[in-house]
Amino acid sequence: MNCEIIAVGDEVLTGDIVNTNAREIAAGLEDAGVRVRRQIVTSDNPAEIRQTLAEAFDRSDVILTIGGLGPTYDDITRESAAEQMGVPLVRDPETERRIREYFTATGRELTDNNWRQAMIPEGGEALVNLNGTAPGIWLEKNGKILVQLPGPPRECLPIFRESVLPRLRERTGQKRVTRSVRIFGIPEAAAESRLHDRMTASRNPVIAPYVKDGEVEIRLRAWADTEEAAYALTEAPAREIAAEFGDHAYSLNGESLSEVLVRTLRENGLHATAAESCTGGMVTAAITSVAGASEVFDGGVCSYANAVKAGLLGVSEETLREHGAVSEACAAEMARGVRKLMRADLAVSVTGIAGPGGGTPEKPVGTVCFGVSTPDGEYTLTRHYRSQGSSVRESNRTRSALEAQFQLLLAARRLGKKQ
Amino acid sequence: MNCEIIAVGDEVLTGDIVNTNAREIAAGLEDAGVRVRRQIVTSDNPAEIRQTLAEAFDRSDVILTIGGLGPTYDDITRESAAEQMGVPLVRDPETERRIREYFTATGRELTDNNWRQAMIPEGGEALVNLNGTAPGIWLEKNGKILVQLPGPPRECLPIFRESVLPRLRERTGQKRVTRSVRIFGIPEAAAESRLHDRMTASRNPVIAPYVKDGEVEIRLRAWADTEEAAYALTEAPAREIAAEFGDHAYSLNGESLSEVLVRTLRENGLHATAAESCTGGMVTAAITSVAGASEVFDGGVCSYANAVKAGLLGVSEETLREHGAVSEACAAEMARGVRKLMRADLAVSVTGIAGPGGGTPEKPVGTVCFGVSTPDGEYTLTRHYRSQGSSVRESNRTRSALEAQFQLLLAARRLGKKQ
Repeated sequence: MNCEIIAVGDEVLTGDIVNTNAREIAAGLEDAGVRVRRQIVTSDNPAEIRQTLAEAFDRSDVILTIGGLGPTYDDITRESAAEQMGVPLVRDPETERRIREYFTATGRELTDNNWRQAMIPEGGEALVNLNGTAPGIWLEKNGKILVQLPGPPRECLPIFRESVLPRLRERTGQKRVTRSVRIFGIPEAAAESRLHDRMTASRNPVIAPYVKDGEVEIRLRAWADTEEAAYALTEAPAREIAAEFGDHAYSLNGESLSEVLVRTLRENGLHATAAESCTGGMVTAAITSVAGASEVFDGGVCSYANAVKAGLLGVSEETLREHGAVSEACAAEMARGVRKLMRADLAVSVTGIAGPGGGTPEKPVGTVCFGVSTPDGEYTLTRHYRSQGSSVRESNRTRSALEAQFQLLLAARRLGKKQ
Repeated sequence: MNCEIIAVGDEVLTGDIVNTNAREIAAGLEDAGVRVRRQIVTSDNPAEIRQTLAEAFDRSDVILTIGGLGPTYDDITRESAAEQMGVPLVRDPETERRIREYFTATGRELTDNNWRQAMIPEGGEALVNLNGTAPGIWLEKNGKILVQLPGPPRECLPIFRESVLPRLRERTGQKRVTRSVRIFGIPEAAAESRLHDRMTASRNPVIAPYVKDGEVEIRLRAWADTEEAAYALTEAPAREIAAEFGDHAYSLNGESLSEVLVRTLRENGLHATAAESCTGGMVTAAITSVAGASEVFDGGVCSYANAVKAGLLGVSEETLREHGAVSEACAAEMARGVRKLMRADLAVSVTGIAGPGGGTPEKPVGTVCFGVSTPDGEYTLTRHYRSQGSSVRESNRTRSALEAQFQLLLAARRLGKKQ
C-alpha cells in the first residue's frame, strides 16, 4: 500500500513555514506499514490543487491531503478530492452540530461559509477535530483511501494519530519500529568504524548512525507483522551496541540525556548542582526541563563575571589572575564552591569561550573547561570544540551543556555503585 | 519565472528528517522574484527520480533539485536532469582537482565512484562546494534553468545563497522583502483586531500576523523592482504598526527579544540579573546567548528549592510559609535578593508552576509570578498561562522566560529615560 502526501498552502510552498506535519505523518505512515511514495506541496490555487490531486489518484493507493480545509469559497480541496473519488459532498449533521457549538461557546459569529466545513464526501467519515472546526475526512472506495487533514499542526497531528493511524494499521501487513541508542562522547567516525561490520550485515533491523550536537544516535529500524514483533527484533542488537560503548551509550529507549541524568540521580538519592559561565544557565535549564527535577536539584549559579565566580563561589583571586577564568583550576574551584553553596552531593562547572569573539592563540574559541566535585573527589577536563557555520556560539554552548550533564551522569553512577 | 523544488532522498520522504532546506530555498527564490510553483519530495529510486524530473521540466522554467548527488551508481539525479536538458554529462577539470585535493587533505581513499561527482552537464557550470565533494550545478538552456544542489544543509544552503541566488536575481523583474514587527504581551486576537482594517487594505506590502510562543509577529511583505525599493515600502507601515503597540512592539528589524534587551541595557549602561525558579536558567541562558552579554550581565541564580530562595536570596520563611514560593510576595523578595547579591541595576524573578504536575485549585498549572527590582522601585505581576498539548511544561517555561526578559526591557527603558 503506497501513499502520496499533498500539503496545500502558499505558506508552506513559499517558505513561510516549515512542513513539519509532513515529517511526522510520513514517519507514522511508514511505521504503520504504508510506503510513502511521494510528498508534494502545492499552492492554494484551485487549478494547481485539482491537477496535483488528479495525478496522485492515478499513482497511489492512499492520498493524504494536509490543509486547504478552510471555510472560504476558494478552499476547494474537499471538492476536488471528492470529485476524484467520484462522489458528491454531503452535509454531516454531527459536524454541523460541533461547528454550531464551537461558535456559540467562543462567542464568534457564524457565517454561511463556515457550513462548508461540515461537507464531507458521500460514504466518508468525518474524523473529530477537538482543536478546530474542520473535521478530518476518511473515505475508502474502489481500492483507494482518501484522508484529508486540516493544516494547523495542533489540529492535524492529533487527528492523524488518533483517527487515521489506527484505521491504516488494520489494513496493512507490516509494521515498522524505530529505536535509538544514544551515545555521548564518541566521535562519529569512531562510532561508525566500530559498528561498520554490524551495520553492513544487519538487514532487519537496519542500523544507521545520525549525528546531532556532538552526540551520535544509532537508529535501529525493524519490520515485522506486528509492532511488538518488530520491537523485539531490536532488543538484542540495541543491547549489544550499547554494551560496545559502555557508559557512553546512555540511552536505549529514547530517553534524553537530561531524563537519564535526573532518573539516575533520583534512583541513587543524590542531589546535583551546577555553576555555569559560558553556558549561562543551559545546564540547570536542561535539568529542570525534566518533571520531578525538584527531587534531585535545589538550584545552581550562573557566574558569568569573575567577580561573581570569586564573590559567590569562592574562586580565588590568585587562580583568576594566574590561570584565568577559562582554566581547569577555575573550573575546579567553581564546582567545589557551588557544591558547598547548594549543599549538593555532586556539582559540575563549565567555563569556556563560546565565541565568536574572545578567543586567543592560547585559548581559542571553543576551549571549555569542566570541573566535577563529589564527596569522593574532584576532577577537571578540557574540551576543544571546532564548531563551524553561523552559530558557533550556540553550538559551543549546546555541546558544553551536554558534556556537563554527561559528567554529572558518570559521577552519579560512580557514586551510586558505592552505596 | 516559476520554479519547482525537487528534494531527492528517502530520509526526507519517509520522515526521518525535516525538509528544512526547502523552506529556506523557497523563501529565497520568492525573495529573488522567482515564484515557487510546486515542491516535491521523491525517493532515491531511479525510476521515480526520472518521472518526477520529466514532469517538472514540462511545467516549470526553473527546476531545482536538492540531494541525489552522491557518488554511487544509483545516484542518477545528475544523469536524469542532463537528459531532460538534452545534453550529455562531461567531466569538469576544476571539480576533479578539488575532489582530489579533498581526499588527499583528509587522508581518505578515493574510489572510482568519487569521480562521478565531477560530472556536470555540458554547457553548465559547477558551483563551488566548500563543505563537501559534490559541486552544485547550474545550466541554462532553451528557456529552462536547471539548478542542482547537494542534500546536506551545510553544503546545500551556502551554495544556494552564494552562487544560485545572485544568478537568479539578475534574471528576474521583481524582488520581494519580508520584514517583521515583533510584539510581546498582546493577545493575537487583539492584535488582529487592531490591525484588521490596515491588513485588509494593504496590498503592497501584504501584512499578516503569525503567533509563536505567546508573541505576535506582524510580517510585512513587499515587492518592487529592487530589494531596496521593496524594503522602503515597508518603512512607514512598520513604524506605524510599531507605534500602534508602543512598548509591546519591541523590534521592527528582526532583532530577537534577547538581542533588544542586551542592546538596550548596553546603550543605557545598565547591568541586569535574574533569579529563576520554574524557568531554571532559561532567562540567563537567553541573555548570555547574545554576544557581548558580559557588558550588561554578571550572573544570576537558579533558586529551585525553597531553601535556596531563603538561604541565598533572603526570601523570608514567613513569606514562604504564608504565601508559598509561587506568590508575588516571594517573587518580590527573590528579585530584591538577587539584585543585591549581583550588585545589579535591574533584577527580574520568576516563580511558578510549569506543570504538568504541581497545580492546585488556587494555583493551577501555568500560574507564574514575576518580580522586578530597580533602584527606583519594585513591582510584581502574575500570569496565568493556558498552554495545551503535549509540552505544557516547556510552553509555560518558554513563555515565562520571554515575559521575564520583556519586563527587564521595560524597566531598562524606564531607567534609561531618567538618565
